[in-house]
Amino acid sequence: MNKNGYNVAVVGATGAVGVEILRVMERRKFPVANLKLLASARSVGKKLDFNGKDYAVEELNAAAFAGIDYAFFSAGATRSREFVDAAIKAGAVVVDNSSAFRMKEDVPLVVPEVNPQDLQNNKGVVANPNCCAAILAVAIWPLHKEFGIKRIVVSTYQSASGAGAQAMAELEDQVKSHVEKRKIEKKVFPHQIAFNLFSHNTKVAANGYNEEENKLIEEIRKMFHEPNLPIVPTCIRVPVLRAHSESVVIETEKPVDVEKARQVLAKSPGVKLVDNVEQNHFPMPLEATGDLDVLVGRIRKDLANDHSLALFVSGDQLLKGAAWNAVQIAEELIKAKA
Amino acid sequence: MNKNGYNVAVVGATGAVGVEILRVMERRKFPVANLKLLASARSVGKKLDFNGKDYAVEELNAAAFAGIDYAFFSAGATRSREFVDAAIKAGAVVVDNSSAFRMKEDVPLVVPEVNPQDLQNNKGVVANPNCCAAILAVAIWPLHKEFGIKRIVVSTYQSASGAGAQAMAELEDQVKSHVEKRKIEKKVFPHQIAFNLFSHNTKVAANGYNEEENKLIEEIRKMFHEPNLPIVPTCIRVPVLRAHSESVVIETEKPVDVEKARQVLAKSPGVKLVDNVEQNHFPMPLEATGDLDVLVGRIRKDLANDHSLALFVSGDQLLKGAAWNAVQIAEELIKAKA
Repeated sequence: MNKNGYNVAVVGATGAVGVEILRVMERRKFPVANLKLLASARSVGKKLDFNGKDYAVEELNAAAFAGIDYAFFSAGATRSREFVDAAIKAGAVVVDNSSAFRMKEDVPLVVPEVNPQDLQNNKGVVANPNCCAAILAVAIWPLHKEFGIKRIVVSTYQSASGAGAQAMAELEDQVKSHVEKRKIEKKVFPHQIAFNLFSHNTKVAANGYNEEENKLIEEIRKMFHEPNLPIVPTCIRVPVLRAHSESVVIETEKPVDVEKARQVLAKSPGVKLVDNVEQNHFPMPLEATGDLDVLVGRIRKDLANDHSLALFVSGDQLLKGAAWNAVQIAEELIKAKA
Repeated sequence: MNKNGYNVAVVGATGAVGVEILRVMERRKFPVANLKLLASARSVGKKLDFNGKDYAVEELNAAAFAGIDYAFFSAGATRSREFVDAAIKAGAVVVDNSSAFRMKEDVPLVVPEVNPQDLQNNKGVVANPNCCAAILAVAIWPLHKEFGIKRIVVSTYQSASGAGAQAMAELEDQVKSHVEKRKIEKKVFPHQIAFNLFSHNTKVAANGYNEEENKLIEEIRKMFHEPNLPIVPTCIRVPVLRAHSESVVIETEKPVDVEKARQVLAKSPGVKLVDNVEQNHFPMPLEATGDLDVLVGRIRKDLANDHSLALFVSGDQLLKGAAWNAVQIAEELIKAKA
């Protein structure tokens, strides 16, 4: 750090998450001395605004990290595997938004509201969790501390943004084609997304769960330090632009108490309680969009089981599910050094 | 019945479900001798096509049921409470699509694939279940017979059609406004439905569950003759036009077996197995639309529990969730008399 702040690199700066990292750093007044925007050759020369100043995108290569203090990687697992080492060797601390390092034993996987202590063990790279895992973790960690979660059943309602800017554009294009009575075309998703929904389009593994669902299982277990926590996820893509929702039923060690759950969530960092029964106002992706907090509501008991609680959650996939959690990790690292 | 078939009345003929009842009767070659279309005063004189012939809508009143053999009611619970008795007194058998009689002890609530035997106890009226309950019942009844279901956790992805033709139009209008960059207006739903989703907009009861969720609980229990079956439902409205989807996790008496579950479902009436792991092709509302069958797939075991199975279901809300199940009930009643 020099007196003006840190030298920051954003890898994958032109992507949906990359752009949000810039916006979140502005919003949080992240102490940036110098900013370097890195991307593949095809984006070189593009200009992006940061705090009112234009920055030209430079080509991502190993030499680009000289002098960088913090590097945010959001260009996919392949790019991360190729360039994270170079960034670390250049002296940067990397916050990696890809899945490349998340399950490596010596890499902390962190949601600051859940396991900030794990940051201490970083060896130059901290992994940012999968979007659904991050959002779920914020919502249920306070309940885990209060009641002791023994099992999670979760069904997701995942927006197009999780598949990137092109996927969001595809939803917009398909809806436009529908309105204009033109043929609906598919390029990004294997199935029509407008007016439709489908099982998350990652490969289904031998265990019957797709990659997204397996990430959710493994990452929650790692962050919660509960390596055997039973989780039954169903990941579904829905025609929403950018916030993810999750229908969650937890089973607990201790009997649940709805009022206690509400109280605990109301004072939990990163959570916004949206649970207005009178007004029928609960978490919705449209209201979660742009919010750094995760919206939590529809809190109610399993009618047949005193040790089970249901809730509904919406969180901005590009913010808490990606960019904001990454910037927040860097903020925590800075705080720890202070 | 005369030699040409039965005298049939459709109450609420101009509504989303009413129109589908006509289409399903055509498709099934339901033996209609005379057809009477009934609706409120405001629809009188409108003409609807049935088997290539125009029928004028007549006003719904107690005298309208003279000579009717089968009356399909789909005009809401208030209309049903007002006129079902008159239809029965006139000698008709009523299939009622509203919630008015579903939970009455002396009224059978029937999905023909599940509890056709209950039809025998009808006293002139048979209730057609809530759309989510009907679709869920078809999908899990074969698994209940095979493995013995002890608990159900279900999250729904309900289309606009469940709230009627005006709600479908509202989704179309909002999407059009979005494309044309006009202000999005709400008339039918309390929240924007385009690019959004929200907790089902029925009143939340003292038990913490909304009306839709309580219907799901009570109706599955009644049809399955399992008055205490634990069910944890979360009902969510999504921006899909007309088929409902459901993410379901069941817990069972006997250990589950994925292959056995697939075999059982593949040969179950009313079920279409859509479970292509290689092609990542599973139930989707777009493919369920227009299908009389319920699509079932994503069949997999709970990784931590040998007595638990997950699946994903899509069914046409207007068909198996309403019109088709109603016509099917009438078909069963006719078969039983033959």
